[in-house]
Amino acid sequence: FIGFWENVQDVTFKAYQMGLSDPRKIIFSAKMGLALMLISILIFMKEPIKGLSSHSVWAILTVVVVFEFSIGATLSKGLNRGIGTLSAGGLALATAELSRLAGEWEEVFIIFSIFTIGFFATYAKLYPTMKPYEYGFRVFLLTYCFVMVSGYRTREFIGIAVNRFLLIALGAGVGLGVNICIYPIWAGEDLHNLVTKNFMGVATSLEGCVNGYLNCVEYERIPSKILTYQASDDPLYSGYRAAVESTSQEDALMGFAIWEPPHGPYRSFKYPWKSYVNVSGALRHCAFMIMALHGCVLSEIQASAERRQVFRRELQKVGTEGAKVLRELGNKVKRMEKLGPDDILHQVHEAAEELQDKVDKKSYLFVNSEDWEIGNRAKDQDLLSVDDNHNTIVLEHKSRSEAVLDLRSVNMPQSWDSNDMKKPMPSIVSSNVYQKQISWPSRVSFTADAVPQVEESKTYESASALSLATFTSLLIEFVARLQNVVVEFEALSEIAKFKEPVESPAAQ
Amino acid sequence: FIGFWENVQDVTFKAYQMGLSDPRKIIFSAKMGLALMLISILIFMKEPIKGLSSHSVWAILTVVVVFEFSIGATLSKGLNRGIGTLSAGGLALATAELSRLAGEWEEVFIIFSIFTIGFFATYAKLYPTMKPYEYGFRVFLLTYCFVMVSGYRTREFIGIAVNRFLLIALGAGVGLGVNICIYPIWAGEDLHNLVTKNFMGVATSLEGCVNGYLNCVEYERIPSKILTYQASDDPLYSGYRAAVESTSQEDALMGFAIWEPPHGPYRSFKYPWKSYVNVSGALRHCAFMIMALHGCVLSEIQASAERRQVFRRELQKVGTEGAKVLRELGNKVKRMEKLGPDDILHQVHEAAEELQDKVDKKSYLFVNSEDWEIGNRAKDQDLLSVDDNHNTIVLEHKSRSEAVLDLRSVNMPQSWDSNDMKKPMPSIVSSNVYQKQISWPSRVSFTADAVPQVEESKTYESASALSLATFTSLLIEFVARLQNVVVEFEALSEIAKFKEPVESPAAQ
Repeated sequence: FIGFWENVQDVTFKAYQMGLSDPRKIIFSAKMGLALMLISILIFMKEPIKGLSSHSVWAILTVVVVFEFSIGATLSKGLNRGIGTLSAGGLALATAELSRLAGEWEEVFIIFSIFTIGFFATYAKLYPTMKPYEYGFRVFLLTYCFVMVSGYRTREFIGIAVNRFLLIALGAGVGLGVNICIYPIWAGEDLHNLVTKNFMGVATSLEGCVNGYLNCVEYERIPSKILTYQASDDPLYSGYRAAVESTSQEDALMGFAIWEPPHGPYRSFKYPWKSYVNVSGALRHCAFMIMALHGCVLSEIQASAERRQVFRRELQKVGTEGAKVLRELGNKVKRMEKLGPDDILHQVHEAAEELQDKVDKKSYLFVNSEDWEIGNRAKDQDLLSVDDNHNTIVLEHKSRSEAVLDLRSVNMPQSWDSNDMKKPMPSIVSSNVYQKQISWPSRVSFTADAVPQVEESKTYESASALSLATFTSLLIEFVARLQNVVVEFEALSEIAKFKEPVESPAAQ
Repeated sequence: FIGFWENVQDVTFKAYQMGLSDPRKIIFSAKMGLALMLISILIFMKEPIKGLSSHSVWAILTVVVVFEFSIGATLSKGLNRGIGTLSAGGLALATAELSRLAGEWEEVFIIFSIFTIGFFATYAKLYPTMKPYEYGFRVFLLTYCFVMVSGYRTREFIGIAVNRFLLIALGAGVGLGVNICIYPIWAGEDLHNLVTKNFMGVATSLEGCVNGYLNCVEYERIPSKILTYQASDDPLYSGYRAAVESTSQEDALMGFAIWEPPHGPYRSFKYPWKSYVNVSGALRHCAFMIMALHGCVLSEIQASAERRQVFRRELQKVGTEGAKVLRELGNKVKRMEKLGPDDILHQVHEAAEELQDKVDKKSYLFVNSEDWEIGNRAKDQDLLSVDDNHNTIVLEHKSRSEAVLDLRSVNMPQSWDSNDMKKPMPSIVSSNVYQKQISWPSRVSFTADAVPQVEESKTYESASALSLATFTSLLIEFVARLQNVVVEFEALSEIAKFKEPVESPAAQ
């Protein structure tokens, strides 16, 4: 009993929290209750009109079915239902007239027509572009069969069709009236907020990635949810994942939003919802770069902390400026403002140029020269000491010790653990802080003696420094892709007639 | 009239093609027609039993609603409907008994109970984890209201509830019988095929990316659909996009598949469909790397063709071997076979090592040494001539001419085109075959004189060579991530009891 009581408390708490985080859900539920109450009262009142009342189920059915969360969805479902009912009713009446001509074969004719209509309507429904009208087809089939079957029995085809239609109209009227007139919930607004939220999420992820990379955040065990692309708590991950995953949600919301009449700040017919989706798509194109950056953070092969520090200031600046641009754009979308006269990308481009400049001067840090066919350059030890940031870091002597390879230890079946590759390799145990285990199990487990292992680990070491180059150039590519987001945003702000920006004191 | 005729022809052709590509759709439509026909015949036959027949709509409604494409969806909807109806019926009967106690307030009590039930059922429906049961809640509401309203009118609460239930059971029986007994369509099979298809798609994209990169495929104009992440015809793009986008489809199919009884090759209760989704998720984690590789192909900043050629053989081999592994795994999933005793990753790891080896020896090609603070190395001209591939390519003298920057000319609003940055920059017009226009418009358009522009283009040139390093290290990261796919596949093959592989003659 105590368990049950705790369960109830738990459910109540969760329900309360849901209401707190989105009060629209409470309002919507109350609206639903209200609509059902109204339709019941109407049916009670109409008791004298026997004919209508005995099929009252249609009115209730319509209210229950048509009552969707957003106005767009409600309207689109209502229209589907209306067109489906009307066309099926018309077709059924015509077929019924025809069937009289069939004489004694009337029954066979009706049954056969049901099969034919059922076949074609279902087949048409399966065509991909027909998906939004799926519900209409269902209603069509239902109405057709119902009118044919009950009509044949009672010989009142027209009566049944008209009766049904009146009740459906009544139900639709009550449903639409309550849903639209009392605190309407707009799909377009949801779409607008979703796009804004995506901007913020990507910005957070970008900052998180750059900071994580610079602070050498290491995933002890990478959550297997990330490896199999499932939702996870990691804020860095969930930020861009939400943006990447929102495609289908956006498409659904857009599908509803185009049904909605002009309202609130969206004051034109044919409001360009498609452009919002485009902006979000361009943002997604950027988010894939963040995803690749996150891949560098997760990666098995990592550059040494010292080398990362050399580029710290520049990387950090690009990250911060990039996130600033994203947040700024997100806010512009939210407030529906055009871009100001200043180039929003100016600072992030400047930061990217500084980074590029630094890369130009220090790109020897990306490569290991020991095996160059054209002969070695200066010893590695000298490299890191040439540093203009005054935070000179002495490389910890072993030029190859930065080979930070880790054993990806997620979801490993037992058979892996029993292999011998988990024991530390003598050749790569170094003084490095990020001492890890080797990660290229395949060859190692097959060549069971020590010498090839050493050869092995040597080979993959040079990749470690390259990973810094990868991070840098992905970041620069991210900045390049920002351009595209700005272009799409400008297109949106033109078509959707965003207002001119208010001169804020912060602007120069 | 001719236009109409052409339209008809067009639709017929499309419908015919849909039937050809997936004959199951034709069969399903015929099944739907058959089920509707059967239920109509049953209703005709039952004419003597007046009570049942006058509410025949419930039987038809149930067939129309429950008849879903896959068995899993049909069963889950049927169960939703059953539970919703039964619980609502029970609750309604109880409330009706209670309402008698209310005496003259009976009507008010009923109306109030409808509001309360409507509110709570709708609120519960909105809770995220309740989403699969959405339909059940709808049916619950509908039944409750219907029983209360018509029961109050006719005073036959129990009669109505039983009547409804019998007709729904009849409809459900016909629907389920036809759908399951005649050529059943399984969601599990769809999921299985989807996973296989994703493997093939990613493999094709991988090969396409590597080949495209080596052959210096240039997108004259990047389709704006790619920039805003929409479906596009580009086969290279659609391959990985399908794998990335299939999350929601997989989740839906899995949600249905778990309802399906053991059948065909899936012979155990609680078949591990979740593991298929995990394999696909791990594959998606790889696909993101392909996406990043494709980003390199699309990128504005490109390495020169000559430098790419140096790594041609190694890159090609990794691409080919990687695709081979993916196809092999895809086929294993398809045929439901375990991995053989040989290490499937052996060859791709070997290829990656060769690539890494080459990188070790030639990493000077990734960087431009001119601006190094530690002093220049040998002149760039010497670099490319040191080549062990016997396809020595003479670098076209200007070491900086590989700065291939292109103006991303998609969706540019007119305002961009009027800027002065489109005129060719004197400093970067080179003898390079991939002569393009500069792409960093921001600064250029602000500093309108020529000198800063030269500075500018210099700065971004060194990124061009780095882009080769990025491509290489992303490819290596891809190989590392393959490991994870193999691990997930092995987990799947264990839990799902895949059969031992047949010794093929090709195996050593």
